[in-house]
Amino acid sequence: MDADLYQRLITYMQRTDTVLTEHVGSKELQLMEQGRDRDAKIYDRDMAWLRQSDLVVAECTCPSLGVGYELASAEHLGIPVHIFYDHTKTQLSAMLTGNPYFHIHPYEKEEEIYKVLEELLNYYQ
Amino acid sequence: MDADLYQRLITYMQRTDTVLTEHVGSKELQLMEQGRDRDAKIYDRDMAWLRQSDLVVAECTCPSLGVGYELASAEHLGIPVHIFYDHTKTQLSAMLTGNPYFHIHPYEKEEEIYKVLEELLNYYQ
Repeated sequence: MDADLYQRLITYMQRTDTVLTEHVGSKELQLMEQGRDRDAKIYDRDMAWLRQSDLVVAECTCPSLGVGYELASAEHLGIPVHIFYDHTKTQLSAMLTGNPYFHIHPYEKEEEIYKVLEELLNYYQ
Repeated sequence: MDADLYQRLITYMQRTDTVLTEHVGSKELQLMEQGRDRDAKIYDRDMAWLRQSDLVVAECTCPSLGVGYELASAEHLGIPVHIFYDHTKTQLSAMLTGNPYFHIHPYEKEEEIYKVLEELLNYYQ
């Protein structure tokens, strides 16, 4: 994972919007298992955040079971999902690119993300 | 991903049961993006398989957006999900371990998987 990139994206969106999962930009916080009781609290909190969201923006260059889980959950909740990934570093699973629900934004340079983000944040405001 | 391990698990289950996703044990088949039309066919086929399933058995040692997506989809379809992972190699996301819907089976040696699988296949038959 690329915490510096996530932090820059979060900071960008926070100029105008509330980012519920700002901890993903923190290098200190670990979202991996920490005992099943603690994990249940993380799960409940993240699902509550998801239900409150108007929009999901996912940087998906790194594979992740948890992110894949959240993408499907957002779809089931009817929340719009925009997926960004660096196509010079990875290919996405066909379970994402083949699903017409998801808006997919391959990028090569980080600047391209901000252009799309600006449009999205205007569109969904 | 560990196609040899997946193939052994598939072969084990095929002694008594039908495995719909036997291609994941093949090293030749790629499930990454292959153009959006082709990806849509893969997505439709995999979702059709999921809907037909009595049980999802997922080896989750390697992170994967597609697998995370399928786990959440199985949950939304009400299909029982059993997740196996080598806890000496990885930790799972709290989005999986913290979700009471999932049955989580950490293992250290491959033999442990077959013991649990045998019980599962008897239980869900």
